[in-house]
Amino acid sequence: MSERKPPIIGASLPRPDARDKVTGRALYTDDLTLPGMLHGTLLRSPLPHARIRRIDVSRARALPGVKDVVVGADTPKVRYGNWRLVPDSQDELPLAVDKVRFVGDEVAAVCAIDRETAERALDLIDVEYEDLPAVFTVDEAMADGAPAIHDEHPDNVSLKREIVYGDLDAAFARAEYVREDVFTTQAVQHAYLEPCASLAAPDEGGRVTLWTSTQVPYIVQCLLASTLGLPENHVRVIKPNVGGAFGGKMELRPWEFCAAFLALRTGRPVKFTLSRRDELAFGRRRHPMRLRSRIGFTKDGRITGREFDVLLDGGAYNAMGPTAAFLCGNFGGMLYRFPAYRYLGRHVYTNKPPASAMRGFGAPQALFACETQMNLAAEALGIDPIELRLRNAMQTGDEIPGVATIRSCGFTDSLRKVREMSDWDRKRKTPGRGRGIGIGCYSFISGGVFNWFDTKYNFATCEVRLFEDGTAHLLTMASDIGQGSDTVLRQILAAELGIGLEKIRLTAADTAVTPKADLGTWGSRVTLMAGNAVLDAARKIKAMLIPVLFAEYDLNQIHDIGFADDRVFVKAKPARGMSLAECAYKALRARRGEPLTAFGAYTPRNMGLVSPAFSFGAQVAEVAVDEETGLVKVERMHTAHDCGTPINEMAVEGQLEGSIHMGLGYALMEELKVEGGVTLNDTFLDYKIPAAEDMPPSASVTVETWEPEGPFGAKEAGEGLVSPTAPAVCEAVHHAVGLCFTDLPITPLKVLRGLGKLPG
Amino acid sequence: MSERKPPIIGASLPRPDARDKVTGRALYTDDLTLPGMLHGTLLRSPLPHARIRRIDVSRARALPGVKDVVVGADTPKVRYGNWRLVPDSQDELPLAVDKVRFVGDEVAAVCAIDRETAERALDLIDVEYEDLPAVFTVDEAMADGAPAIHDEHPDNVSLKREIVYGDLDAAFARAEYVREDVFTTQAVQHAYLEPCASLAAPDEGGRVTLWTSTQVPYIVQCLLASTLGLPENHVRVIKPNVGGAFGGKMELRPWEFCAAFLALRTGRPVKFTLSRRDELAFGRRRHPMRLRSRIGFTKDGRITGREFDVLLDGGAYNAMGPTAAFLCGNFGGMLYRFPAYRYLGRHVYTNKPPASAMRGFGAPQALFACETQMNLAAEALGIDPIELRLRNAMQTGDEIPGVATIRSCGFTDSLRKVREMSDWDRKRKTPGRGRGIGIGCYSFISGGVFNWFDTKYNFATCEVRLFEDGTAHLLTMASDIGQGSDTVLRQILAAELGIGLEKIRLTAADTAVTPKADLGTWGSRVTLMAGNAVLDAARKIKAMLIPVLFAEYDLNQIHDIGFADDRVFVKAKPARGMSLAECAYKALRARRGEPLTAFGAYTPRNMGLVSPAFSFGAQVAEVAVDEETGLVKVERMHTAHDCGTPINEMAVEGQLEGSIHMGLGYALMEELKVEGGVTLNDTFLDYKIPAAEDMPPSASVTVETWEPEGPFGAKEAGEGLVSPTAPAVCEAVHHAVGLCFTDLPITPLKVLRGLGKLPG
Repeated sequence: MSERKPPIIGASLPRPDARDKVTGRALYTDDLTLPGMLHGTLLRSPLPHARIRRIDVSRARALPGVKDVVVGADTPKVRYGNWRLVPDSQDELPLAVDKVRFVGDEVAAVCAIDRETAERALDLIDVEYEDLPAVFTVDEAMADGAPAIHDEHPDNVSLKREIVYGDLDAAFARAEYVREDVFTTQAVQHAYLEPCASLAAPDEGGRVTLWTSTQVPYIVQCLLASTLGLPENHVRVIKPNVGGAFGGKMELRPWEFCAAFLALRTGRPVKFTLSRRDELAFGRRRHPMRLRSRIGFTKDGRITGREFDVLLDGGAYNAMGPTAAFLCGNFGGMLYRFPAYRYLGRHVYTNKPPASAMRGFGAPQALFACETQMNLAAEALGIDPIELRLRNAMQTGDEIPGVATIRSCGFTDSLRKVREMSDWDRKRKTPGRGRGIGIGCYSFISGGVFNWFDTKYNFATCEVRLFEDGTAHLLTMASDIGQGSDTVLRQILAAELGIGLEKIRLTAADTAVTPKADLGTWGSRVTLMAGNAVLDAARKIKAMLIPVLFAEYDLNQIHDIGFADDRVFVKAKPARGMSLAECAYKALRARRGEPLTAFGAYTPRNMGLVSPAFSFGAQVAEVAVDEETGLVKVERMHTAHDCGTPINEMAVEGQLEGSIHMGLGYALMEELKVEGGVTLNDTFLDYKIPAAEDMPPSASVTVETWEPEGPFGAKEAGEGLVSPTAPAVCEAVHHAVGLCFTDLPITPLKVLRGLGKLPG
Repeated sequence: MSERKPPIIGASLPRPDARDKVTGRALYTDDLTLPGMLHGTLLRSPLPHARIRRIDVSRARALPGVKDVVVGADTPKVRYGNWRLVPDSQDELPLAVDKVRFVGDEVAAVCAIDRETAERALDLIDVEYEDLPAVFTVDEAMADGAPAIHDEHPDNVSLKREIVYGDLDAAFARAEYVREDVFTTQAVQHAYLEPCASLAAPDEGGRVTLWTSTQVPYIVQCLLASTLGLPENHVRVIKPNVGGAFGGKMELRPWEFCAAFLALRTGRPVKFTLSRRDELAFGRRRHPMRLRSRIGFTKDGRITGREFDVLLDGGAYNAMGPTAAFLCGNFGGMLYRFPAYRYLGRHVYTNKPPASAMRGFGAPQALFACETQMNLAAEALGIDPIELRLRNAMQTGDEIPGVATIRSCGFTDSLRKVREMSDWDRKRKTPGRGRGIGIGCYSFISGGVFNWFDTKYNFATCEVRLFEDGTAHLLTMASDIGQGSDTVLRQILAAELGIGLEKIRLTAADTAVTPKADLGTWGSRVTLMAGNAVLDAARKIKAMLIPVLFAEYDLNQIHDIGFADDRVFVKAKPARGMSLAECAYKALRARRGEPLTAFGAYTPRNMGLVSPAFSFGAQVAEVAVDEETGLVKVERMHTAHDCGTPINEMAVEGQLEGSIHMGLGYALMEELKVEGGVTLNDTFLDYKIPAAEDMPPSASVTVETWEPEGPFGAKEAGEGLVSPTAPAVCEAVHHAVGLCFTDLPITPLKVLRGLGKLPG
């Protein structure tokens, strides 16, 4: 399968940054201070939809200790948004001008000598609003006569995405069994441990440096420059350690702009740190969706086609909604062979905090719907749900409708493995009382191909320097946000150069230092894309070293050179060789002191518009439903998945654990309650996420495949796994107590209502 | 002269960093703080020479708030020194082991939660010393039976440097006038505004980062790694803003080691900041020297030869003494045509704080001696001192004895200019009462060729990145220590790319970021060497852009492309062109997103062992001597000098002003008084440097030459000018009151004694 696999590939190596993180030494943005630093706060709209008539900041300005107060009118008023390729989609302003569109929309920013003063100043800003009618659901937003949230979109539909593949009418005509279901999903939040923080400092010549908790330093650099009216490279963005992001930190955000803008105005460093309440009440969240799926089968369980119609509740701005609308449609047709497939996704504005990217990025919603529907269809067809999937499962070489050809696919293996490891056949046939077992599956992308940000640079770039002390330095703009990509990239470099992790210094995510560019951490792109860039650079470094051995040993041209154990050697005669340090020294000497430095780059080309590689997996949940309390307890999880070659087995396990945790929250308890545009549960006391004690025992198997496009055969492992849990748990509940849920989360209340123990 | 000179070359541009510096925003090392930072202090030897019998740190360790205490025995005990090429010369240890050799030798280091605690802990360290006999002068040190300060050098002479050129015996046989004089010079100090400070923080994987006030980040990196026993690249050295150095910060120093060592031991950041007393009492200083010069002339004033015998009082360690001994001999034979020249320099250990590099680096002493001797010889020969110099002055194409051939020389022009501008002929003939006019000259190097640090890298390297927004980024390890080299390097890049300074971001002096390597700021090497590296990179960038125009305009191969005013254009038809931004954009597109990045390097090759270029100048001082008080008042200075093409005229003027200031202090008042190894004047109240009111009016002319080896024809402007002031003032005093001084400084006491008004 793998052409070669150095021992460090797949090794369960602890992260080099782990020690500093667990001992509290690692610095996050809010840990940073600079001499003369000011503290910033944001005034937010209390209304979901209103016109701003007047803002008077004079009382706030007069408060001793306040150094500056800015409102939208003070700013360059440049619209921004991640979809730079489609300028019309850029619908945000750093501070509201004329209108506010959700409760929490940023209206003014203050900086003062301390946080308390900056907060007090907010109360002294007088804003006169003219209340406007607001809409809070997609139905309200799309109703005739609904108020337009953005003038450019009178129908509040900001974007449509269609996929048309095959002859759907013929597909349904051929079908012997057709069903249509409507599913709804809720708003949930990333709940990363580190609330957003940004620190900006003025830099020489009107430049500015921003340290920020982000997963997209390059995107922040570009958009911040554009909103400030500066040349792109007058803005430097540095990502310190990041305590989780999950898609919630992948855009330019108002406090990043305000920190930089105020730093430039005051000539002093300015820091903003959000509270947990800011995050929960006003922060980005996963799109609530309504998903209508119609699917047809032959009698023996072959899918004939699917029609998939999805409404995304986007909140007040596009944010990453266009991508979610785009990807959701892909996920609806990615797992199984669909002779015909039609998707219509509509992204709808509502007067709520914007939804945006969140781990899975359209997949958790799509797969809750589609996988639950598969389970319901299996029951109706009288076919075991795993068997039904095996009959339709995508295979290596299959085409995903309108997307790409799959070049590695371990889906069938995953289904077989999970059936075996969970003792599925026995448990499915003979469940205990109130006990059930269910399955959910997923496929996912390994990074995006479609260049929505419209970068002119390669998608991933790096620089590798090798030194005559046998150590190396990897510079990359790839962003480790806690997922461990810094470790994985080092492993890839270590594998290629034949050295240990400890030999590699890493500098990451500083737009003025690390080479241009990298699109950031999202869509599970880092291992494959930044990893390929590392491989590219490492190979160039090796090409600088190989001549040393040919000269030293007067080698026949047919020889190949190996790199392992800090040595460089003739593969056929390993005794002929030298330490990497000595070889680097000799190469450096031969180059007359020119450093051993190489750039590496990767951009997927000729791979469709979605992703260069696809991963697959299956998950079985076992649950016990307490029919008295309605509580669903997940007793065990079984996962088999194909992430190509795991680079770091321990990191893959970590991703699985985190995914199950998030998936359980999504399935059973998490939900942002929004009423009249106000998010009601804005603390972790009210917004429930699973605790350690809620985590079930879990077993997993990685089905190794070799992804030809991935570094050492690797592909995605960080996001796909978040999707199968909800449909698996839903089906297990169905299996346990016969209730079929089509809306998330499956709360005790809903279970009791379903069981008739409470009025519906 | 100049083949081409873009308008920005020679422009008097203010430094981009000036605003932050004058407003206090610029961060120096001591301004930096990190979470959990500890404060370090050093225990120093109270004795000039002693054996350490026992050190007990237990009481210090027990003091609440103390986090660590280390002594020499705790360290890896690796000897270090800048002359890595000659390992035997490396005679220092970060903390004393077995012996202390001067009052101030570092014995132990403490770190604690605050500075006060760390200082209190010093008193609790018990050291038992065995007093050893000590020597404080070169005579004592070289006397029979003198105690050996280092066992390896029983005669206390650590190093000899000889130059033998031509037949000296024949030269003196041919001479019609011979004189021999002995000169002595004193210890003076750099008196930089910013006392030394270093902050170290532990970094992932046992690495360490050091922010330090240094002029040689790369050298500190290498030597710190070696003293810590780490691979070179496990140490990262960053130079923040530096408030002056003048040669005083060009070595690894004990507090740099101790900060890093303690940071690694405690796992916490540790900062050391020296006091002014530390600097004056224990810091590096300019070598006191005794210089015997014998010179022969023909009757008409042609030099036949010189014998130059110099004893350098090096203090307890070599430090940069070997280079001073090396260069001093070169400066003795650099200004005039010497048919024969012999030099013997001996570097002598004494039990005093080590002398080391200081602006001029052997030249102020050599030229005080040699130029004063020229003046005395002129008087004896009955030839005007300027005329005597003109008869012997070096010319373009001449060979400096055993050194190199001069490829540009504006010495004669300088002499003529200064004669004219000072109205020399008239004033020399008819001085007022107690008034005199005198001349001193200099030549200096533009960086060193001899690779005493034994780097394997190019001497200067840089990276230039050009962006599609028309801005550029210059990354260089060159170290601006206040002299303005960051501005000059930007001007060179700006000139070559045809853009303004404000378009260039600069990142400098971070060993983990800026490309390897740069030997640092010393020997006036930066403009020429780092400047040439910048030119090299800029030309490579241009080579990436030029094809865009050839393709766009289908150009005949004979065309050349110009870069000016943010435009790229066909030189012969300037209307055919585009903005640099557009051109960069098109080139980036054509390169499919590969960044426009180029490395540049410079190493002088085939240029002898001293310097690739030589600068020259002449200075006339006018003084008034108060015969009642003995006070010498310098009333006016006139300077004409050849620094090739000035890159920044204002920066050259700044160097001249600073040089006159330092030269006046050297000539008239500055002197570290050391008794029994103890420096007595350890405050700025007792150690007098000229104040603003002491600065005379000054006129200057730059005699522009074109140095073929320099960027845009530039060469040294920062150090040479520090040497002519003392001999010029000395000769002016001689002219005014007939007293001839051969030892510095010329204090009122010495003047009054000379005038017979006080007993000698």
